[in-house]
Amino acid sequence: MKKVTLKVPATIANLVCGFDILGMAINEPADDMEMRLLETPEIIIRHTDGFGLPEEPAENVAGVVLLKIMERLKLKHGFEVIIHKNIKPGSGLGSSAASAAGAALGAHLLLGNIFTREEMVYYAMFGEELASGARHADNIAPCIYGGITLVKSSEPVDIIPLNAPDLWVTAVHPQVEVKTSDAREILRKNILLKDAIQQWGNIAGLVAGIQNNDHALIGRSLNDVIIEPVRSILIPKFDHIKRESLEAGALGGGISGSGPSVFMFSEEEETSRTIAGIMKSAYDSTGIESLVYVSKVNPSGIRIVKD
Amino acid sequence: MKKVTLKVPATIANLVCGFDILGMAINEPADDMEMRLLETPEIIIRHTDGFGLPEEPAENVAGVVLLKIMERLKLKHGFEVIIHKNIKPGSGLGSSAASAAGAALGAHLLLGNIFTREEMVYYAMFGEELASGARHADNIAPCIYGGITLVKSSEPVDIIPLNAPDLWVTAVHPQVEVKTSDAREILRKNILLKDAIQQWGNIAGLVAGIQNNDHALIGRSLNDVIIEPVRSILIPKFDHIKRESLEAGALGGGISGSGPSVFMFSEEEETSRTIAGIMKSAYDSTGIESLVYVSKVNPSGIRIVKD
Repeated sequence: MKKVTLKVPATIANLVCGFDILGMAINEPADDMEMRLLETPEIIIRHTDGFGLPEEPAENVAGVVLLKIMERLKLKHGFEVIIHKNIKPGSGLGSSAASAAGAALGAHLLLGNIFTREEMVYYAMFGEELASGARHADNIAPCIYGGITLVKSSEPVDIIPLNAPDLWVTAVHPQVEVKTSDAREILRKNILLKDAIQQWGNIAGLVAGIQNNDHALIGRSLNDVIIEPVRSILIPKFDHIKRESLEAGALGGGISGSGPSVFMFSEEEETSRTIAGIMKSAYDSTGIESLVYVSKVNPSGIRIVKD
Repeated sequence: MKKVTLKVPATIANLVCGFDILGMAINEPADDMEMRLLETPEIIIRHTDGFGLPEEPAENVAGVVLLKIMERLKLKHGFEVIIHKNIKPGSGLGSSAASAAGAALGAHLLLGNIFTREEMVYYAMFGEELASGARHADNIAPCIYGGITLVKSSEPVDIIPLNAPDLWVTAVHPQVEVKTSDAREILRKNILLKDAIQQWGNIAGLVAGIQNNDHALIGRSLNDVIIEPVRSILIPKFDHIKRESLEAGALGGGISGSGPSVFMFSEEEETSRTIAGIMKSAYDSTGIESLVYVSKVNPSGIRIVKD
């Protein structure tokens, strides 16, 4: 295979109570990536999205992943990558993970299906390291595995794919900046044992609900007593959107990754579209621009469009 | 129905990383309870086990459960209960929960199947309150539901029954006293967020492993970085038993409830019997008497022997 075209989905890390361990792929937004095998050991990156991301391989999220693969495998080949991002950088919807995971999966396909999924996660984490300074897999794993994944450990890579519940997801990206580093710094390093117990009860309930496709249990487990109360302060209109969405029939939801995007689960498409309206008008009324996405949980992750 | 005879199983709370939320029923040891409906609104409790437990209804774990049922339902009937405990009080194997759950289920049967399982848990918690001062359901729930249960909330009662993995369990009860109150007091009220994250990754892995009957995943999720390092100090030979059991092929294990009992999971009966030998000789060598039980996970909880 000489060329591959990929649709690389947005992902929602944490899933409310699963801070640093859970992640989920959704259908929209999604990046387009086109990758070509080169006869020479060089990397050419081109962005057609106008976000002004660096194209120098060592400074590009997809680039560092490919550099690491070339180095480890002592490749004589190189790669050309054309990226059209639809997942805005800084949205909290896994934009950097999409580039990293897409690069790893693309290389895997172009080199003849040579990696396990764990290996792709391993290489893609070098992209996350460049983007955020941390080798974390909570967005990369659902991008590669699809559905909802549990990152039991990132070194060594131990990913547990969970079921993909048959649910709608509404996500809103308000155009405000929340730096991942700020979102991390405001967290307390110490927490109360009693809060932790409540949190792990919710996580256990969420995992059981996901595995049994029990929507009511998923709903009443989407409760975060540790991270959300602190981080939601950084997100304008968070409480308003959450309250109105639940009143409109959302099962639950919260901050996507470290924000500023917010997501909500619904059982019905109609509910998810009502919630999209609630989100949009909340930000319109305060003069904050926003992008809203309605799609389903993505059970398969990155999709090969053409090869 | 005028009379019912029950086999009420021991239970293992916490299951290593599921502190205060998970519990599991095992087949051995198990109490024998015989309950009879009386025409008069009185409660007669008789213990035939020689443990010297109080037989005054208001001071007896089964008694307070029945008193509460009589009061709430304004019953004109009463109950006679003959209890032969095989689960030693103070073992950490759910001895008080067995009496409480047996009383609630027995009353349910004698009164014509009038309660939901949640209601039985609700009433049985009054027995736990008498025994330990806390209305907790982590031992009661698996006694009533069987298998492994998640207590998502005890007020209101919200129990999620999980699968019963096809595993062997070896449990040892060293004859030393660990007071539940002491075991609770030595816990730190504050914990590190990074430890909590590791813990909830393990809990999520354990629940996924239980739901998928994935023994390897269960094994590598049975890891407690918060409670066990503190509480295991109270249990002689804990580290030795754990290390030797894992070397002998145990999937994992830890403290049962707040101790002093220790349990280990195995895939094969032979392994579980080898581990029984390891446990026995560890305590024999230090002059501590011990009782060892080998049985399987109990998928159905309390069993009706005769009615």
